Amino acid sequence: MGKRAILAGAGALPGLLLDAGPARVVRFQGVDCAVTGDAIEARFEQLGGLFDALRAEDVTELCLAGAMSRSGFDPAALDAVTMGLVPRLMAAQGQGDDALLRTIVAILEEQGFTIRAAHDIRPDLLAGRGAMAGAAQPEDDADAARARAVLAALGPLDVGQAAVAAKGQMLGIETLQGTDAMLRFVAETRRGSGGVLVKRAKPGQDLRVDMPAIGPRTVELAAKAGLSGIEVQAGSVLLLDKAAVLAACAETGVALWGAP
Amino acid sequence: MGKRAILAGAGALPGLLLDAGPARVVRFQGVDCAVTGDAIEARFEQLGGLFDALRAEDVTELCLAGAMSRSGFDPAALDAVTMGLVPRLMAAQGQGDDALLRTIVAILEEQGFTIRAAHDIRPDLLAGRGAMAGAAQPEDDADAARARAVLAALGPLDVGQAAVAAKGQMLGIETLQGTDAMLRFVAETRRGSGGVLVKRAKPGQDLRVDMPAIGPRTVELAAKAGLSGIEVQAGSVLLLDKAAVLAACAETGVALWGAP
Repeated sequence: MGKRAILAGAGALPGLLLDAGPARVVRFQGVDCAVTGDAIEARFEQLGGLFDALRAEDVTELCLAGAMSRSGFDPAALDAVTMGLVPRLMAAQGQGDDALLRTIVAILEEQGFTIRAAHDIRPDLLAGRGAMAGAAQPEDDADAARARAVLAALGPLDVGQAAVAAKGQMLGIETLQGTDAMLRFVAETRRGSGGVLVKRAKPGQDLRVDMPAIGPRTVELAAKAGLSGIEVQAGSVLLLDKAAVLAACAETGVALWGAP
Repeated sequence: MGKRAILAGAGALPGLLLDAGPARVVRFQGVDCAVTGDAIEARFEQLGGLFDALRAEDVTELCLAGAMSRSGFDPAALDAVTMGLVPRLMAAQGQGDDALLRTIVAILEEQGFTIRAAHDIRPDLLAGRGAMAGAAQPEDDADAARARAVLAALGPLDVGQAAVAAKGQMLGIETLQGTDAMLRFVAETRRGSGGVLVKRAKPGQDLRVDMPAIGPRTVELAAKAGLSGIEVQAGSVLLLDKAAVLAACAETGVALWGAP
Protein backbone atom coordinates (compact mmCIF):
# COMPACT_ATOMS: atom_id res chain seq x y z
CA MET A 1 0.00 0.00 0.00
CA GLY A 2 1.28 3.43 -0.94
CA LYS A 3 1.92 6.35 1.32
CA ARG A 4 -0.12 9.44 1.99
CA ALA A 5 0.94 13.04 1.33
CA ILE A 6 -0.68 16.17 2.68
CA LEU A 7 -0.67 19.13 0.28
CA ALA A 8 -0.40 21.62 3.10
CA GLY A 9 -1.96 25.07 3.06
CA ALA A 10 -2.79 27.58 5.78
CA GLY A 11 -4.39 26.96 9.16
CA ALA A 12 -4.52 24.14 11.65
CA LEU A 13 -5.84 21.36 9.41
CA PRO A 14 -2.52 20.07 7.94
CA GLY A 15 -1.08 19.64 11.43
CA LEU A 16 -4.24 17.94 12.68
CA LEU A 17 -4.05 15.46 9.79
CA LEU A 18 -0.44 14.63 10.60
CA ASP A 19 -1.55 13.77 14.13
CA ALA A 20 -3.70 11.00 12.64
CA GLY A 21 -0.84 9.00 11.20
CA PRO A 22 2.34 9.13 9.16
CA ALA A 23 2.25 11.21 5.99
CA ARG A 24 4.63 13.17 3.81
CA VAL A 25 4.06 16.94 3.73
CA VAL A 26 4.13 18.92 0.50
CA ARG A 27 4.77 22.64 0.92
CA PHE A 28 4.33 25.01 -2.02
CA GLN A 29 6.62 27.97 -2.46
CA GLY A 30 4.87 31.21 -1.44
CA VAL A 31 2.00 29.43 0.31
CA ASP A 32 1.32 30.20 3.97
CA CYS A 33 1.84 26.92 5.85
CA ALA A 34 2.12 26.33 9.59
CA VAL A 35 3.65 22.84 9.34
CA THR A 36 7.40 22.93 9.81
CA GLY A 37 9.96 20.18 9.52
CA ASP A 38 10.73 17.71 6.77
CA ALA A 39 8.66 18.20 3.60
CA ILE A 40 8.69 17.95 -0.15
CA GLU A 41 9.19 21.53 -1.35
CA ALA A 42 7.13 22.15 -4.47
CA ARG A 43 6.26 24.94 -6.89
CA PHE A 44 2.99 25.41 -8.75
CA GLU A 45 5.08 25.99 -11.88
CA GLN A 46 6.73 22.58 -11.58
CA LEU A 47 3.99 20.02 -11.10
CA GLY A 48 5.88 17.49 -13.26
CA GLY A 49 8.69 17.57 -10.73
CA LEU A 50 6.22 17.17 -7.87
CA PHE A 51 4.51 14.17 -9.47
CA ASP A 52 7.92 12.52 -9.97
CA ALA A 53 8.94 13.19 -6.36
CA LEU A 54 5.68 11.75 -5.03
CA ARG A 55 6.00 8.60 -7.15
CA ALA A 56 9.65 8.20 -6.16
CA GLU A 57 8.49 8.10 -2.54
CA ASP A 58 5.66 5.67 -3.31
CA VAL A 59 2.94 8.22 -2.48
CA THR A 60 -0.45 7.16 -3.89
CA GLU A 61 -2.87 9.11 -1.72
CA LEU A 62 -3.16 12.89 -1.60
CA CYS A 63 -5.04 15.04 0.86
CA LEU A 64 -5.48 18.76 0.10
CA ALA A 65 -5.65 20.60 3.40
CA GLY A 66 -5.88 24.30 4.22
CA ALA A 67 -6.36 27.31 1.99
CA MET A 68 -3.67 28.04 -0.59
CA SER A 69 -3.87 31.66 -1.60
CA ARG A 70 -2.83 32.33 -5.14
CA SER A 71 0.66 33.67 -5.18
CA GLY A 72 2.76 34.98 -8.03
CA PHE A 73 3.19 32.63 -10.95
CA ASP A 74 6.44 32.69 -12.91
CA PRO A 75 5.94 31.49 -16.51
CA ALA A 76 9.71 31.25 -16.99
CA ALA A 77 9.87 28.54 -14.31
CA LEU A 78 7.28 26.21 -15.87
CA ASP A 79 8.31 22.61 -16.41
CA ALA A 80 7.05 20.66 -19.44
CA VAL A 81 4.23 18.85 -17.64
CA THR A 82 2.87 22.07 -16.09
CA MET A 83 3.18 23.91 -19.40
CA GLY A 84 0.91 21.30 -20.94
CA LEU A 85 -1.64 21.85 -18.17
CA VAL A 86 -1.66 25.66 -18.28
CA PRO A 87 -4.42 26.09 -20.89
CA ARG A 88 -6.76 23.85 -18.88
CA LEU A 89 -5.91 25.57 -15.60
CA MET A 90 -6.36 29.03 -17.09
CA ALA A 91 -9.70 28.14 -18.62
CA ALA A 92 -10.86 26.76 -15.26
CA GLN A 93 -9.60 29.80 -13.36
CA GLY A 94 -11.77 32.02 -15.54
CA GLN A 95 -14.79 30.14 -14.19
CA GLY A 96 -13.97 30.76 -10.56
CA ASP A 97 -12.21 29.11 -7.65
CA ASP A 98 -14.46 26.06 -7.50
CA ALA A 99 -13.86 25.26 -11.15
CA LEU A 100 -10.12 25.67 -10.68
CA LEU A 101 -10.17 23.30 -7.72
CA ARG A 102 -12.22 20.72 -9.65
CA THR A 103 -9.70 20.86 -12.47
CA ILE A 104 -6.75 20.44 -10.11
CA VAL A 105 -8.45 17.40 -8.53
CA ALA A 106 -9.13 15.94 -11.99
CA ILE A 107 -5.47 16.42 -12.95
CA LEU A 108 -4.25 14.74 -9.76
CA GLU A 109 -6.57 11.78 -10.37
CA GLU A 110 -5.45 11.48 -13.99
CA GLN A 111 -1.90 11.27 -12.67
CA GLY A 112 -2.98 8.18 -10.75
CA PHE A 113 -3.28 9.65 -7.28
CA THR A 114 -6.23 8.95 -5.01
CA ILE A 115 -7.81 12.01 -3.35
CA ARG A 116 -8.49 11.47 0.30
CA ALA A 117 -10.83 13.78 2.23
CA ALA A 118 -9.56 15.40 5.42
CA HIS A 119 -12.68 14.35 7.32
CA ASP A 120 -12.09 10.81 6.16
CA ILE A 121 -8.71 10.89 7.92
CA ARG A 122 -10.02 12.79 10.97
CA PRO A 123 -13.78 12.06 11.27
CA ASP A 124 -13.59 13.27 14.87
CA LEU A 125 -13.27 16.85 13.56
CA LEU A 126 -16.68 16.76 11.86
CA ALA A 127 -19.50 18.79 13.36
CA GLY A 128 -22.15 16.56 14.87
CA ARG A 129 -25.89 17.02 15.10
CA GLY A 130 -27.61 18.85 17.94
CA ALA A 131 -26.12 20.94 20.74
CA MET A 132 -22.32 20.91 20.93
CA ALA A 133 -21.81 23.90 23.25
CA GLY A 134 -24.29 25.96 25.28
CA ALA A 135 -27.93 26.20 24.32
CA ALA A 136 -29.60 28.07 21.47
CA GLN A 137 -31.82 30.99 22.50
CA PRO A 138 -35.55 30.67 21.67
CA GLU A 139 -35.26 33.39 18.99
CA ASP A 140 -32.21 31.73 17.38
CA ASP A 141 -34.34 29.18 15.51
CA ALA A 142 -36.01 31.80 13.35
CA ASP A 143 -32.71 33.59 12.65
CA ALA A 144 -30.99 30.33 11.71
CA ALA A 145 -33.86 29.48 9.37
CA ARG A 146 -33.63 32.91 7.75
CA ALA A 147 -29.87 32.57 7.17
CA ARG A 148 -30.32 29.01 5.83
CA ALA A 149 -32.94 30.27 3.37
CA VAL A 150 -30.53 32.91 2.08
CA LEU A 151 -27.73 30.36 1.67
CA ALA A 152 -30.11 27.95 -0.08
CA ALA A 153 -31.10 30.68 -2.55
CA LEU A 154 -27.46 31.53 -3.28
CA GLY A 155 -26.15 27.96 -3.42
CA PRO A 156 -27.02 27.32 -7.07
CA LEU A 157 -24.97 30.44 -7.90
CA ASP A 158 -21.95 29.01 -6.06
CA VAL A 159 -22.00 31.90 -3.57
CA GLY A 160 -22.13 31.92 0.20
CA GLN A 161 -20.98 29.37 2.75
CA ALA A 162 -22.05 31.54 5.65
CA ALA A 163 -24.57 34.20 6.62
CA VAL A 164 -25.61 36.11 9.73
CA ALA A 165 -29.20 36.92 10.69
CA ALA A 166 -30.53 38.71 13.77
CA LYS A 167 -34.15 39.46 14.62
CA GLY A 168 -35.18 38.33 11.15
CA GLN A 169 -32.80 40.72 9.39
CA MET A 170 -29.73 39.75 7.37
CA LEU A 171 -26.57 41.36 8.77
CA GLY A 172 -23.97 39.57 6.68
CA ILE A 173 -23.69 37.31 3.63
CA GLU A 174 -20.31 35.74 2.96
CA THR A 175 -18.49 36.72 -0.21
CA LEU A 176 -15.00 35.93 -1.55
CA GLN A 177 -13.33 37.51 1.49
CA GLY A 178 -14.57 34.70 3.73
CA THR A 179 -16.39 34.14 7.00
CA ASP A 180 -13.97 36.00 9.26
CA ALA A 181 -14.11 39.16 7.14
CA MET A 182 -17.92 38.98 7.16
CA LEU A 183 -17.99 38.64 10.96
CA ARG A 184 -15.65 41.63 11.35
CA PHE A 185 -17.98 43.62 9.12
CA VAL A 186 -20.98 42.65 11.25
CA ALA A 187 -19.10 43.56 14.44
CA GLU A 188 -18.21 46.99 13.06
CA THR A 189 -21.56 47.91 11.54
CA ARG A 190 -24.40 46.34 13.48
CA ARG A 191 -26.48 47.84 16.27
CA GLY A 192 -27.74 45.76 19.16
CA SER A 193 -26.85 42.15 19.82
CA GLY A 194 -28.09 38.62 19.34
CA GLY A 195 -28.41 36.64 16.15
CA VAL A 196 -26.90 33.56 14.56
CA LEU A 197 -24.06 32.68 12.21
CA VAL A 198 -24.97 29.79 9.91
CA LYS A 199 -22.19 27.97 8.04
CA ARG A 200 -22.92 25.24 5.51
CA ALA A 201 -21.44 23.61 2.44
CA LYS A 202 -22.56 24.87 -0.96
CA PRO A 203 -24.48 22.31 -3.05
CA GLY A 204 -21.74 21.87 -5.67
CA GLN A 205 -18.83 21.90 -3.27
CA ASP A 206 -16.34 19.00 -3.46
CA LEU A 207 -16.11 18.11 0.22
CA ARG A 208 -13.09 15.91 -0.39
CA VAL A 209 -10.91 18.96 -0.99
CA ASP A 210 -12.92 21.99 0.10
CA MET A 211 -14.65 21.52 3.40
CA PRO A 212 -16.22 24.47 5.23
CA ALA A 213 -14.55 24.93 8.61
CA ILE A 214 -14.77 26.98 11.75
CA GLY A 215 -12.10 27.50 14.36
CA PRO A 216 -11.81 29.20 17.75
CA ARG A 217 -11.21 32.50 15.91
CA THR A 218 -14.63 32.13 14.25
CA VAL A 219 -16.22 31.77 17.68
CA GLU A 220 -14.34 34.81 19.02
CA LEU A 221 -15.37 36.92 16.02
CA ALA A 222 -18.98 35.77 16.38
CA ALA A 223 -18.85 36.89 20.01
CA LYS A 224 -17.39 40.26 18.99
CA ALA A 225 -20.25 40.60 16.49
CA GLY A 226 -22.67 40.17 19.40
CA LEU A 227 -24.07 36.86 18.12
CA SER A 228 -25.62 34.38 20.50
CA GLY A 229 -25.03 31.24 18.47
CA ILE A 230 -23.41 29.41 15.57
CA GLU A 231 -25.20 26.76 13.56
CA VAL A 232 -23.09 24.46 11.38
CA GLN A 233 -24.19 21.78 8.96
CA ALA A 234 -23.75 18.44 10.71
CA GLY A 235 -21.32 16.18 8.84
CA SER A 236 -20.31 18.93 6.39
CA VAL A 237 -18.34 21.40 8.50
CA LEU A 238 -14.98 20.80 10.19
CA LEU A 239 -14.21 22.06 13.69
CA LEU A 240 -10.50 22.98 13.74
CA ASP A 241 -10.00 21.72 16.15
CA LYS A 242 -12.98 20.59 18.16
CA ALA A 243 -11.45 21.07 21.62
CA ALA A 244 -10.32 24.62 20.84
CA VAL A 245 -13.71 25.52 19.33
CA LEU A 246 -15.62 24.20 22.33
CA ALA A 247 -13.26 26.02 24.69
CA ALA A 248 -13.87 29.28 22.81
CA CYS A 249 -17.62 28.69 23.05
CA ALA A 250 -17.36 28.13 26.80
CA GLU A 251 -15.28 31.27 27.22
CA THR A 252 -17.44 33.57 25.09
CA GLY A 253 -20.88 32.10 25.84
CA VAL A 254 -21.58 31.57 22.13
CA ALA A 255 -23.73 28.47 21.61
CA LEU A 256 -22.84 25.94 18.90
CA TRP A 257 -25.08 23.36 17.34
CA GLY A 258 -25.26 21.15 14.27
CA ALA A 259 -28.29 21.07 11.96
CA PRO A 260 -29.12 18.57 9.22
CA MET B 1 -57.12 70.74 -4.63
CA GLY B 2 -55.30 69.94 -1.40
CA LYS B 3 -51.75 70.68 -0.52
CA ARG B 4 -48.75 68.41 -0.45
CA ALA B 5 -46.62 67.57 2.57
CA ILE B 6 -43.19 65.97 2.59
CA LEU B 7 -42.54 63.60 5.51
CA ALA B 8 -38.86 64.48 5.61
CA GLY B 9 -36.12 62.03 6.55
CA ALA B 10 -32.36 62.02 6.01
CA GLY B 11 -30.42 62.90 2.89
CA ALA B 12 -30.90 65.20 -0.08
CA LEU B 13 -34.27 63.95 -1.31
CA PRO B 14 -36.61 66.09 0.87
CA GLY B 15 -34.83 69.26 -0.26
CA LEU B 16 -34.89 68.17 -3.90
CA LEU B 17 -38.66 67.59 -3.68
CA LEU B 18 -39.19 71.07 -2.23
CA ASP B 19 -37.40 72.49 -5.28
CA ALA B 20 -40.17 71.01 -7.44
CA GLY B 21 -42.99 73.08 -5.97
CA PRO B 22 -44.61 74.32 -2.79
CA ALA B 23 -45.11 71.76 -0.04
CA ARG B 24 -45.35 71.64 3.74
CA VAL B 25 -42.51 69.88 5.52
CA VAL B 26 -43.15 67.43 8.36
CA ARG B 27 -40.18 66.82 10.64
CA PHE B 28 -40.27 64.03 13.21
CA GLN B 29 -38.62 64.46 16.58
CA GLY B 30 -35.32 62.56 16.73
CA VAL B 31 -35.14 61.97 12.98
CA ASP B 32 -32.09 63.20 11.08
CA CYS B 33 -33.37 65.78 8.57
CA ALA B 34 -31.43 68.29 6.50
CA VAL B 35 -34.38 70.54 5.66
CA THR B 36 -34.48 73.61 7.86
CA GLY B 37 -37.07 76.36 8.13
CA ASP B 38 -40.80 76.31 8.65
CA ALA B 39 -42.24 72.82 9.25
CA ILE B 40 -44.87 70.87 11.09
CA GLU B 41 -43.03 69.33 14.03
CA ALA B 42 -44.35 65.82 14.67
CA ARG B 43 -43.74 62.83 16.95
CA PHE B 44 -44.20 59.17 16.07
CA GLU B 45 -46.07 58.82 19.38
CA GLN B 46 -48.63 61.45 18.37
CA LEU B 47 -49.89 60.57 14.92
CA GLY B 48 -53.42 61.70 15.84
CA GLY B 49 -52.06 65.19 16.38
CA LEU B 50 -50.17 65.03 13.08
CA PHE B 51 -53.26 63.92 11.13
CA ASP B 52 -55.24 66.81 12.67
CA ALA B 53 -52.51 69.32 11.83
CA LEU B 54 -52.30 68.11 8.21
CA ARG B 55 -56.08 68.30 7.76
CA ALA B 56 -56.20 71.76 9.36
CA GLU B 57 -53.76 72.91 6.69
CA ASP B 58 -55.72 71.21 3.91
CA VAL B 59 -52.93 68.69 3.16
CA THR B 60 -54.25 65.74 1.11
CA GLU B 61 -51.07 64.42 -0.49
CA LEU B 62 -48.12 62.92 1.38
CA CYS B 63 -44.66 62.07 0.10
CA LEU B 64 -42.33 59.99 2.30
CA ALA B 65 -38.76 61.04 1.50
CA GLY B 66 -35.46 60.01 3.01
CA ALA B 67 -34.59 57.33 5.53
CA MET B 68 -36.07 57.69 9.01
CA SER B 69 -34.00 55.69 11.44
CA ARG B 70 -35.94 54.29 14.34
CA SER B 71 -35.41 56.45 17.35
CA GLY B 72 -36.55 55.99 20.92
CA PHE B 73 -40.26 55.52 21.38
CA ASP B 74 -41.90 56.90 24.53
CA PRO B 75 -45.07 54.96 25.38
CA ALA B 76 -46.04 57.61 27.94
CA ALA B 77 -46.33 60.19 25.14
CA LEU B 78 -48.79 58.21 22.98
CA ASP B 79 -51.97 59.98 21.89
CA ALA B 80 -55.22 58.03 21.57
CA VAL B 81 -55.04 57.54 17.79
CA THR B 82 -51.47 56.22 17.92
CA MET B 83 -52.29 53.97 20.88
CA GLY B 84 -54.96 52.33 18.74
CA LEU B 85 -52.41 51.75 15.99
CA VAL B 86 -49.63 50.33 18.17
CA PRO B 87 -50.68 46.63 18.00
CA ARG B 88 -50.75 46.78 14.20
CA LEU B 89 -47.42 48.59 14.00
CA MET B 90 -45.75 46.20 16.42
CA ALA B 91 -47.01 43.15 14.55
CA ALA B 92 -45.69 44.60 11.30
CA GLN B 93 -42.35 45.51 12.83
CA GLY B 94 -41.84 41.88 13.80
CA GLN B 95 -41.99 41.02 10.09
CA GLY B 96 -39.25 43.41 9.06
CA ASP B 97 -38.80 46.94 7.78
CA ASP B 98 -40.71 46.42 4.55
CA ALA B 99 -43.78 45.13 6.40
CA LEU B 100 -43.61 48.08 8.78
CA LEU B 101 -43.45 50.53 5.89
CA ARG B 102 -46.38 48.83 4.13
CA THR B 103 -48.45 49.13 7.29
CA ILE B 104 -47.56 52.81 7.72
CA VAL B 105 -48.59 53.48 4.11
CA ALA B 106 -51.86 51.59 4.65
CA ILE B 107 -52.60 53.66 7.76
CA LEU B 108 -51.92 56.93 5.96
CA GLU B 109 -54.23 55.90 3.12
CA GLU B 110 -56.96 54.85 5.55
CA GLN B 111 -56.71 58.33 7.05
CA GLY B 112 -57.63 59.69 3.61
CA PHE B 113 -54.22 60.85 2.44
CA THR B 114 -52.90 60.12 -1.03
CA ILE B 115 -49.34 58.75 -1.19
CA ARG B 116 -47.27 60.45 -3.82
CA ALA B 117 -44.00 58.92 -5.04
CA ALA B 118 -40.87 61.05 -4.98
CA HIS B 119 -40.04 60.10 -8.56
CA ASP B 120 -43.50 61.19 -9.58
CA ILE B 121 -42.72 64.69 -8.26
CA ARG B 122 -39.15 64.71 -9.62
CA PRO B 123 -39.03 62.29 -12.60
CA ASP B 124 -35.81 64.00 -13.67
CA LEU B 125 -34.02 62.23 -10.78
CA LEU B 126 -34.78 58.75 -12.15
CA ALA B 127 -31.93 56.72 -13.61
CA GLY B 128 -32.30 56.40 -17.36
CA ARG B 129 -31.33 53.54 -19.64
CA GLY B 130 -27.89 53.17 -21.19
CA ALA B 131 -24.69 55.09 -20.52
CA MET B 132 -25.06 58.07 -18.16
CA ALA B 133 -21.38 58.67 -17.37
CA GLY B 134 -18.21 57.19 -18.87
CA ALA B 135 -18.21 53.84 -20.62
CA ALA B 136 -18.47 50.33 -19.16
CA GLN B 137 -15.34 48.20 -19.51
CA PRO B 138 -15.63 45.07 -21.67
CA GLU B 139 -15.40 42.81 -18.58
CA ASP B 140 -18.07 44.81 -16.72
CA ASP B 141 -20.92 43.09 -18.56
CA ALA B 142 -20.17 39.69 -17.06
CA ASP B 143 -19.69 41.13 -13.56
CA ALA B 144 -22.95 43.09 -13.77
CA ALA B 145 -24.76 39.93 -14.91
CA ARG B 146 -23.28 37.98 -12.00
CA ALA B 147 -24.37 40.59 -9.44
CA ARG B 148 -27.85 40.80 -11.04
CA ALA B 149 -28.20 37.00 -10.77
CA VAL B 150 -27.35 37.14 -7.05
CA LEU B 151 -29.87 39.94 -6.45
CA ALA B 152 -32.52 38.05 -8.44
CA ALA B 153 -31.97 34.95 -6.29
CA LEU B 154 -32.26 36.97 -3.07
CA GLY B 155 -35.18 39.17 -4.13
CA PRO B 156 -37.94 36.70 -3.16
CA LEU B 157 -36.39 36.65 0.34
CA ASP B 158 -36.64 40.45 0.56
CA VAL B 159 -32.84 40.77 0.85
CA GLY B 160 -30.37 42.76 -1.19
CA GLN B 161 -30.76 45.96 -3.16
CA ALA B 162 -27.12 45.97 -4.15
CA ALA B 163 -24.18 43.68 -4.82
CA VAL B 164 -20.58 43.95 -6.03
CA ALA B 165 -18.93 41.48 -8.42
CA ALA B 166 -15.40 41.54 -9.86
CA LYS B 167 -13.83 39.04 -12.24
CA GLY B 168 -16.81 36.75 -11.76
CA GLN B 169 -16.48 36.70 -7.96
CA MET B 170 -18.89 38.24 -5.46
CA LEU B 171 -17.16 40.80 -3.23
CA GLY B 172 -20.20 42.24 -1.47
CA ILE B 173 -23.90 41.55 -0.96
CA GLU B 174 -25.93 44.27 0.71
CA THR B 175 -27.50 43.51 4.08
CA LEU B 176 -29.40 45.66 6.59
CA GLN B 177 -26.46 48.05 6.99
CA GLY B 178 -26.94 49.39 3.46
CA THR B 179 -25.01 50.06 0.27
CA ASP B 180 -22.44 52.45 1.71
CA ALA B 181 -21.44 50.02 4.49
CA MET B 182 -21.07 47.26 1.90
CA LEU B 183 -18.85 49.43 -0.30
CA ARG B 184 -16.66 50.35 2.68
CA PHE B 185 -16.31 46.62 3.43
CA VAL B 186 -15.28 45.92 -0.17
CA ALA B 187 -12.77 48.78 -0.09
CA GLU B 188 -11.19 47.46 3.11
CA THR B 189 -11.08 43.77 2.25
CA ARG B 190 -10.64 43.27 -1.48
CA ARG B 191 -7.46 42.71 -3.43
CA GLY B 192 -6.97 44.11 -6.91
CA SER B 193 -9.33 46.46 -8.69
CA GLY B 194 -12.15 46.52 -11.23
CA GLY B 195 -15.66 45.22 -10.87
CA VAL B 196 -19.19 46.57 -10.79
CA LEU B 197 -21.73 47.71 -8.21
CA VAL B 198 -25.28 46.78 -9.23
CA LYS B 199 -28.20 48.48 -7.48
CA ARG B 200 -31.80 47.50 -8.16
CA ALA B 201 -35.22 47.51 -6.53
CA LYS B 202 -36.35 44.33 -4.78
CA PRO B 203 -39.39 42.65 -6.36
CA GLY B 204 -41.79 43.43 -3.49
CA GLN B 205 -40.55 46.95 -2.82
CA ASP B 206 -43.15 49.74 -2.73
CA LEU B 207 -41.44 52.27 -4.98
CA ARG B 208 -43.85 55.00 -3.93
CA VAL B 209 -42.24 55.21 -0.52
CA ASP B 210 -39.01 53.21 -0.69
CA MET B 211 -36.99 53.89 -3.79
CA PRO B 212 -33.39 52.67 -4.10
CA ALA B 213 -31.06 55.63 -4.51
CA ILE B 214 -27.45 56.48 -5.13
CA GLY B 215 -25.69 59.76 -4.46
CA PRO B 216 -22.24 61.24 -5.09
CA ARG B 217 -21.07 59.49 -1.90
CA THR B 218 -22.00 56.13 -3.45
CA VAL B 219 -19.82 56.95 -6.44
CA GLU B 220 -16.92 58.02 -4.24
CA LEU B 221 -17.15 54.82 -2.18
CA ALA B 222 -17.34 52.72 -5.35
CA ALA B 223 -14.15 54.43 -6.51
CA LYS B 224 -12.47 53.76 -3.15
CA ALA B 225 -13.49 50.11 -3.54
CA GLY B 226 -11.63 50.05 -6.87
CA LEU B 227 -14.77 49.48 -8.94
CA SER B 228 -14.87 50.54 -12.57
CA GLY B 229 -18.61 50.97 -12.89
CA ILE B 230 -22.07 51.24 -11.35
CA GLU B 231 -25.13 49.71 -12.95
CA VAL B 232 -28.54 50.91 -11.75
CA GLN B 233 -31.98 49.70 -12.70
CA ALA B 234 -33.40 52.20 -15.17
CA GLY B 235 -36.60 53.79 -13.91
CA SER B 236 -36.28 52.22 -10.45
CA VAL B 237 -33.30 53.98 -8.88
CA LEU B 238 -33.06 57.66 -7.92
CA LEU B 239 -29.93 59.73 -8.52
CA LEU B 240 -29.67 62.23 -5.64
CA ASP B 241 -29.08 64.39 -7.26
CA LYS B 242 -28.25 63.67 -10.85
CA ALA B 243 -25.84 66.57 -11.40
CA ALA B 244 -23.82 65.70 -8.27
CA VAL B 245 -23.73 62.00 -9.18
CA LEU B 246 -22.53 62.71 -12.71
CA ALA B 247 -19.91 65.14 -11.39
CA ALA B 248 -18.63 62.46 -8.98
CA CYS B 249 -18.44 59.99 -11.88
CA ALA B 250 -16.47 62.46 -13.95
CA GLU B 251 -14.09 63.14 -11.08
CA THR B 252 -13.49 59.51 -10.09
CA GLY B 253 -13.69 57.87 -13.52
CA VAL B 254 -16.40 55.46 -12.35
CA ALA B 255 -18.80 54.67 -15.22
CA LEU B 256 -22.58 54.76 -14.65
CA TRP B 257 -25.25 53.13 -16.74
CA GLY B 258 -28.86 52.07 -16.52
CA ALA B 259 -30.05 48.54 -17.32
CA PRO B 260 -33.61 47.30 -17.82
